[in-house]
Amino acid sequence: MSEAPHLTFDLEKPGVSKGDLVVPKGADCEALSLPVFSLNKGEGPRLLITGGCHGNELEGPIVARRLIEWLPEAQTCGRIIIVPVLNPPAVQAFTRNTPIDGLNLNRVFPGRADGSATERIADAVSRILLPTADTIFDLHSYGPGWEFPLVNTTHPVADPGLMAKTIRMAEAFKLPMTLIWEHPETPGMFDTLAQNQGKVFICPELGGGEVGAEALAIYEAGVRNGLIALGLVEGKSDYLTFRRQNSVQALETRRSSDELYSPARGIFEPRCSMLDEVKQGDLIGVLYPMDSLTADTIDVLAPGTSIVCGIRSGSYVEVGEFIALLGRPLNR
Amino acid sequence: MSEAPHLTFDLEKPGVSKGDLVVPKGADCEALSLPVFSLNKGEGPRLLITGGCHGNELEGPIVARRLIEWLPEAQTCGRIIIVPVLNPPAVQAFTRNTPIDGLNLNRVFPGRADGSATERIADAVSRILLPTADTIFDLHSYGPGWEFPLVNTTHPVADPGLMAKTIRMAEAFKLPMTLIWEHPETPGMFDTLAQNQGKVFICPELGGGEVGAEALAIYEAGVRNGLIALGLVEGKSDYLTFRRQNSVQALETRRSSDELYSPARGIFEPRCSMLDEVKQGDLIGVLYPMDSLTADTIDVLAPGTSIVCGIRSGSYVEVGEFIALLGRPLNR
Repeated sequence: MSEAPHLTFDLEKPGVSKGDLVVPKGADCEALSLPVFSLNKGEGPRLLITGGCHGNELEGPIVARRLIEWLPEAQTCGRIIIVPVLNPPAVQAFTRNTPIDGLNLNRVFPGRADGSATERIADAVSRILLPTADTIFDLHSYGPGWEFPLVNTTHPVADPGLMAKTIRMAEAFKLPMTLIWEHPETPGMFDTLAQNQGKVFICPELGGGEVGAEALAIYEAGVRNGLIALGLVEGKSDYLTFRRQNSVQALETRRSSDELYSPARGIFEPRCSMLDEVKQGDLIGVLYPMDSLTADTIDVLAPGTSIVCGIRSGSYVEVGEFIALLGRPLNR
Repeated sequence: MSEAPHLTFDLEKPGVSKGDLVVPKGADCEALSLPVFSLNKGEGPRLLITGGCHGNELEGPIVARRLIEWLPEAQTCGRIIIVPVLNPPAVQAFTRNTPIDGLNLNRVFPGRADGSATERIADAVSRILLPTADTIFDLHSYGPGWEFPLVNTTHPVADPGLMAKTIRMAEAFKLPMTLIWEHPETPGMFDTLAQNQGKVFICPELGGGEVGAEALAIYEAGVRNGLIALGLVEGKSDYLTFRRQNSVQALETRRSSDELYSPARGIFEPRCSMLDEVKQGDLIGVLYPMDSLTADTIDVLAPGTSIVCGIRSGSYVEVGEFIALLGRPLNR
């Protein structure tokens, strides 16, 4: 058994601290050092902000680094701990999963001290960082290959009190959309672990391969709105401008009817944009068989009245690949 | 020696024909069939439209497939041959280069009949398709990981008459930008082979990972404008709306001063958007060292007054990676 995971500094120290979360070495790699920022202003909310869980979602690490620059001037109380990159090997490889063991960090929580690299990261985060916070902002994005709005997502939570509190917190970001995504039972998610401990877990997603300056600014402003709502930062919370949206939509998406999959292999062409309203029979996209120009193209149609929450970018797809996510106003 | 590359149909046949360009088998893979469309309306310009040279640039294949749907109603004269996917193995793998031999199709022209898969594709295209056309539209895009406008690019051509003709043709697309990109001597490009034969070679590029419905519509309208300018299709050519642009800018970019490279490894954050005007010292982007939160961030500054032609999306970069392309109005 190697050394235990630990922080290189004392979280109780007042003011700004910077150091590392050390994830012990194992059979598959040397010890990893995850840079950690902490700003302790005493009494108040205890927040953990994480980014870079998936290595091809770079918005989170960038927004986290920007926060570290201005929080010392802005935070008035409580304690905020920031880990810009939870999974450094995946970020360096620009892969969703960890290249060392091929695992998805967001499927192995709470992890294992004697497991592979990804499991050891999850173990260190679960044991050292998660207990320090009542609220977690885990900064994700939808990843390359999709057109996806700036959205705060949460999956349905069994406890109705925690569900309501989570939706309120998510909406306080004032991102263009809050999405309650009915999700299959997925073991090992960071979300579930935190929610089972009664914590508010917020997961902003920003999609598409284009991590542009404008989208980053809106993402950062959304997180700032969340900090204001928690009372950690003073200031006025603003609605954000993104595409045609200047208000918050709360949508829900049902697993059975709102996830569209490719009916064949071929090149998918999106025929709608995110946030478009569609009704039954409207064209969502077209599939072009690649092997022949005489084979018919296949129309992908909307099964009912809905709003396009996300649409796959033009790409080659196999049969059964996820190509569009629809939603409808949240039934509160 | 296996069979020679050939078409499965007769290009001289009037009207619409569909079939394949057969690329013979070799030591590394079986024969490849590239679907080909031809519409022969007799006298007039002879145009070749190709897409999917690089497998992670899907705009071209999609726009090519859309053209095939409406050209039979619209084309009035001449002959148009369309190959939506030049490199099927690369498109299926969503990789720039061919997965079979690791080669970049746009670096091996004119190819080799006894070479590897990529070289055999280039050989078939050079020998069977290129001689059929006076003008080539090779539909590219900038690929994932960049914010890049809809732009028609050409590299400087030695023959001033052909250069002027090429720029006129490129501008006729009325895409938001026409870019004359000074490029290092790069052997094996399709462009160079065609230009050395006195042909007009047009290479639209559309960047970013997001192959969305709106961008595809503009790309297609640009190609339609090009067809109208050639006299192959009747109709009115329109300026296109993209971001804040509603006119054509012709820019040039110089190799020595306008290509910016990462000064260090870390996470790059873009601080400007494409088409932004910047002056000397303006912030183009920021580099965050990943290994430590105490190491200083590095500012990437504009070397002079220029227009941002392309900007890398937020991503992990090694030292020396290409992160921004600047330009200035074309000095005619």
